[in-house]
Amino acid sequence: MNTKRNIYLDMKSIEEAQACLFDAFKDHITDVETLDVVRAKERVLASQAVAAISSPNFHAAAMDGIAVEAEDTFGASEDSPKTLEIGKTAFWVNTGHALPGGTNAVIMIEHLNVDGDSIEIEAPAFPWQYVRKMGEDIVATQLLFPRDHQINAYSMGAMLSGGVFQVEVRKKPRVLIIPTGSELKQWQDCSPGTMVPGDVVESNSTVLGALCEDHGAEFRIHTMLRDDLETIKKSVADAVSGGYDMVMIIGGSSAGSEDFAKPVISSLGEVYVHGVTMMPGKPVMFGRIADTPVFGIPGYPVSAIVAFEQLAGPLLRRMQHLPDKPLPTAGVTPARKVASKLGQEEFLRVKIGSVDGKLMSSQLPRGSGSITTLTEADGIIRIPRHVEGISETETVQAHLLRPLDAIEKTVVITGSHDNTLDLLTDQVRQNHPRTGISSSHVGSMGGLMAIKKGACHMAGSHLLDPEDGSYNVSYIEKYLAGIPVRLVNLVMREQGLILPKGNPEKIGGLEDLAAGKLQFINRQPGSGTRILLDYKLKELGLSPNDIAGYENDEYTHMSVAVAVLSGRADTGLGIKAAALALGLDFLPVVTESYDLIIPETYYRSANIQALLETVRSDEFKARVLALGGYGVEKTGEELYRSA
Amino acid sequence: MNTKRNIYLDMKSIEEAQACLFDAFKDHITDVETLDVVRAKERVLASQAVAAISSPNFHAAAMDGIAVEAEDTFGASEDSPKTLEIGKTAFWVNTGHALPGGTNAVIMIEHLNVDGDSIEIEAPAFPWQYVRKMGEDIVATQLLFPRDHQINAYSMGAMLSGGVFQVEVRKKPRVLIIPTGSELKQWQDCSPGTMVPGDVVESNSTVLGALCEDHGAEFRIHTMLRDDLETIKKSVADAVSGGYDMVMIIGGSSAGSEDFAKPVISSLGEVYVHGVTMMPGKPVMFGRIADTPVFGIPGYPVSAIVAFEQLAGPLLRRMQHLPDKPLPTAGVTPARKVASKLGQEEFLRVKIGSVDGKLMSSQLPRGSGSITTLTEADGIIRIPRHVEGISETETVQAHLLRPLDAIEKTVVITGSHDNTLDLLTDQVRQNHPRTGISSSHVGSMGGLMAIKKGACHMAGSHLLDPEDGSYNVSYIEKYLAGIPVRLVNLVMREQGLILPKGNPEKIGGLEDLAAGKLQFINRQPGSGTRILLDYKLKELGLSPNDIAGYENDEYTHMSVAVAVLSGRADTGLGIKAAALALGLDFLPVVTESYDLIIPETYYRSANIQALLETVRSDEFKARVLALGGYGVEKTGEELYRSA
Repeated sequence: MNTKRNIYLDMKSIEEAQACLFDAFKDHITDVETLDVVRAKERVLASQAVAAISSPNFHAAAMDGIAVEAEDTFGASEDSPKTLEIGKTAFWVNTGHALPGGTNAVIMIEHLNVDGDSIEIEAPAFPWQYVRKMGEDIVATQLLFPRDHQINAYSMGAMLSGGVFQVEVRKKPRVLIIPTGSELKQWQDCSPGTMVPGDVVESNSTVLGALCEDHGAEFRIHTMLRDDLETIKKSVADAVSGGYDMVMIIGGSSAGSEDFAKPVISSLGEVYVHGVTMMPGKPVMFGRIADTPVFGIPGYPVSAIVAFEQLAGPLLRRMQHLPDKPLPTAGVTPARKVASKLGQEEFLRVKIGSVDGKLMSSQLPRGSGSITTLTEADGIIRIPRHVEGISETETVQAHLLRPLDAIEKTVVITGSHDNTLDLLTDQVRQNHPRTGISSSHVGSMGGLMAIKKGACHMAGSHLLDPEDGSYNVSYIEKYLAGIPVRLVNLVMREQGLILPKGNPEKIGGLEDLAAGKLQFINRQPGSGTRILLDYKLKELGLSPNDIAGYENDEYTHMSVAVAVLSGRADTGLGIKAAALALGLDFLPVVTESYDLIIPETYYRSANIQALLETVRSDEFKARVLALGGYGVEKTGEELYRSA
Repeated sequence: MNTKRNIYLDMKSIEEAQACLFDAFKDHITDVETLDVVRAKERVLASQAVAAISSPNFHAAAMDGIAVEAEDTFGASEDSPKTLEIGKTAFWVNTGHALPGGTNAVIMIEHLNVDGDSIEIEAPAFPWQYVRKMGEDIVATQLLFPRDHQINAYSMGAMLSGGVFQVEVRKKPRVLIIPTGSELKQWQDCSPGTMVPGDVVESNSTVLGALCEDHGAEFRIHTMLRDDLETIKKSVADAVSGGYDMVMIIGGSSAGSEDFAKPVISSLGEVYVHGVTMMPGKPVMFGRIADTPVFGIPGYPVSAIVAFEQLAGPLLRRMQHLPDKPLPTAGVTPARKVASKLGQEEFLRVKIGSVDGKLMSSQLPRGSGSITTLTEADGIIRIPRHVEGISETETVQAHLLRPLDAIEKTVVITGSHDNTLDLLTDQVRQNHPRTGISSSHVGSMGGLMAIKKGACHMAGSHLLDPEDGSYNVSYIEKYLAGIPVRLVNLVMREQGLILPKGNPEKIGGLEDLAAGKLQFINRQPGSGTRILLDYKLKELGLSPNDIAGYENDEYTHMSVAVAVLSGRADTGLGIKAAALALGLDFLPVVTESYDLIIPETYYRSANIQALLETVRSDEFKARVLALGGYGVEKTGEELYRSA
């Protein structure tokens, strides 16, 4: 196997890379085309729009009534009214109509005493009353919009009113996206039923194409290419001579032996930057071939997006003179301390919730391979290069991915993970479209701590008290003393050993793990399931050291089930629903109470009442039962209320 | 002429009208259609998206290097390295590749000593290091997005990765827009050169169509209809049976004799609301025909937009379960007091500038006929029904129409109006794309007062001192004492009498106005031009009472020229450029200095330096001279600096 590797040029900071990119292609402004105004929404004016006609282009009645010459009405009063004759000194007009010649005022119909063709008025009209004067809105020759104005619905109206029916606008930049990677398959060639381990669906080209559109560009996706230098080189050379305004090679931008973006660009043209001190997105590169900007976009989905949004996207906007579109920001407080690496700027994805009027953020996983960290995120905190992390007392700016308004209407649930929370999220959306739910999974103890810190509206918890077999109450009394809360049951659920289909190792109970031959997969410290395991091991007289794999942990039931499915572990403790979802076997150990802990301060709020109403609905209960492994006999019941 | 009129039903508040509308059509949710994910951007999920495959769906290398079984490496150290054999205990892998069976860890290529097929390692690997475990991002059966999620670029990526290639989404609502009005012409039938007074270009249908798209709907524009009850009735009846989700009749929603929206809706169905206590937009109406919502949208452009955005637009969003999209807001301080009518909610269009870190707003004209009040606006202040106005000491919330970021980069010029300011705006855009200019016209004295209040960055001024014939300096010393400013010349310009083409009344100078037979059009008090007029009248021994029309005033030179062009006045004092622009005659009276007054605090700022650089450029001067009526001999020169 070839072990020849590229070497990163000097890494650049984001600002340096942007400056280099924008300068190198500063003259790459797209051509001008002429469009009908009615087809030009969102386009950028290439020349100023100047009114060709005035609006109105005549004196127009601004009310329904009669048009008169004001001088004819002077002296009219209640004591000595004046009489006007229709067709001679008074003319019926409707709003918008041109004033008849010789008239210069309108009297509202509401103020008239009509008697056949005679009209009596008891007050004078002043000149130009209720008249929209010629040019009142737009004067012919007036500048309507300067060049570089981005056309929207309102500006289309102003241009038509000003007699501007065609406009010169910037052409949309055309982008060719070339996905590469021998391990990838096009979605058109995949079907979920027949995919085998090792098949990966190529998704970056779709995401980048959609982002191109969001930045005013057009895109075409090239047939996917295998990791072959000559093939990629030929496609890029064709694209460059085919008149594209930008080429993006996805994948192979790193320094591995099959990373061909760099040899392609450097053999056909020049590489300007390889490597930017940001995370995700570090391996991005760009250069020039002939006169075309060519990007090497890293293959991890979040890296690809960050690389696009920091470099390729802003360049596409500059090509059309579109201003950058910064995300709105808001100050947030991290629910816990965040460490970060010196020397690289990190794009930390966070969930954000408004708790007691304060925006609290909790960080999502940092892996650049996980697209769901972006789809789950409410915002992004950029941690600068020279900073080592952020503390939980600081307020930092987050770039918002969802409207603040929606974030503020969201119930933040932190704590233990359960599949019925997804179901509840969907059902609440249906019953109460204005209420959202955001849940993050930090284990039952993590949920209690979040309530204590005021970092969530409620916590999901199933903490067993080994003394009396009760759930949650003793923990609330111990850890949340002084914070009045209510405890409401969400579901009863079965916990047990998740086993490979057919139970090949014939595991009959936790005690079979003691031999040390079987690999266990654990849950993280502080999770209710781990506390349950420790309790059960103690009952059996076993210690953690007796269990191979005790130290390997996962954060959700589903991850435990996946570990078993993939052969990474022989068994793990988890809920029946997770085993059923992946077609695995299940050996029950205990039925436990999974409850919601809700501080009294939020209990009465409309959002939380909406959520509880849904919890208590027959529809929700029926959907829970359909999952299997759950009981709903106490669902929605208040189990306890602290003083 | 027919004087039969409709009568408004009880007027409703915006909230009442919305409640009535949303309740009446709460079951009008559009049908479901199935689309490829790659075609579903911005659509709304009609059912939840559940992952069909895991991502990754195998254990994948997260680094380039060798895959090993961690247990084979245990015990390796610098003192006792271990040797692995390629193809037996070590396997080359690149990032993203599946781990070969029997391996569970990756050692980075950077940490290897390779010697042929032997590899020496000096540290153990721990299990699962540099491995992306199966399901790390997405677990099969996991809820990816709940129903009603609006699909964006990121979510397309997550769905493809999770094996979701088709989705059920809400169909786009289909809207039929019917423009009515005998006075209107379709833009396709107009050409600026041949339009005659009385011709009005129909623009509302284009604006409302574009807004429909912005709210996720599709639209079709019906051929324009004349004000004829039976024709409109037939078209609406056809539309309703043709399966449109909404019909909008534009025009004729008021209470005039040719307002047919109400008779059409009430004869074919039922009117629910006619008249909403908002301004603009009051005459809006809506009802139901068969099962279709039908709107009567007022014909004034700003009324039409407000009516759409408060009622029809939000209903279109509800039909697709799209959340409302509120505009961002910011606190602004009005530069002067704003009065408003009790009993109706006003949508006040304002320009906003950031001066000294504080957002200052200045109101635009309030007429609902003026689309430019919306295109010029940076924001909208909603003045509630129960409030009589807002004072200049209050901070009120404005809904922003431009990004705050762009507003903050804008130089705010208040004061006298001159055509070269439009030209400067365009030229600055070209030379300094990140700098904007916003100018509002309140006269020279208004500009001085704005500087005193800190409501602008600079003021345009041409205030003549009758004592010595100087411009601006004595006013600065009198009114801006204690505020250090610089005075920079923008242009020298000719002021004089603007006259109809051919000068039919043979006007030879201001003295000819004294007879009182000729109608004059004046500029507003506090404008430099009015001060000039008063000075010249005094020189001639004339008083305002000698001039017919002295009390009629306009706010810009162009409006004065339009008044002359339209025959509303025989002459007015103004700049030559305005006369030239409309093909009018011009009789010079004086050459004056039009200057920029710039407070010292802002003078050094990058934006203002960019502006002055442009003022001093040859390109700007050439464009000014091309207008005619201007001199540039002092352009850009600093004329004065106060202590």
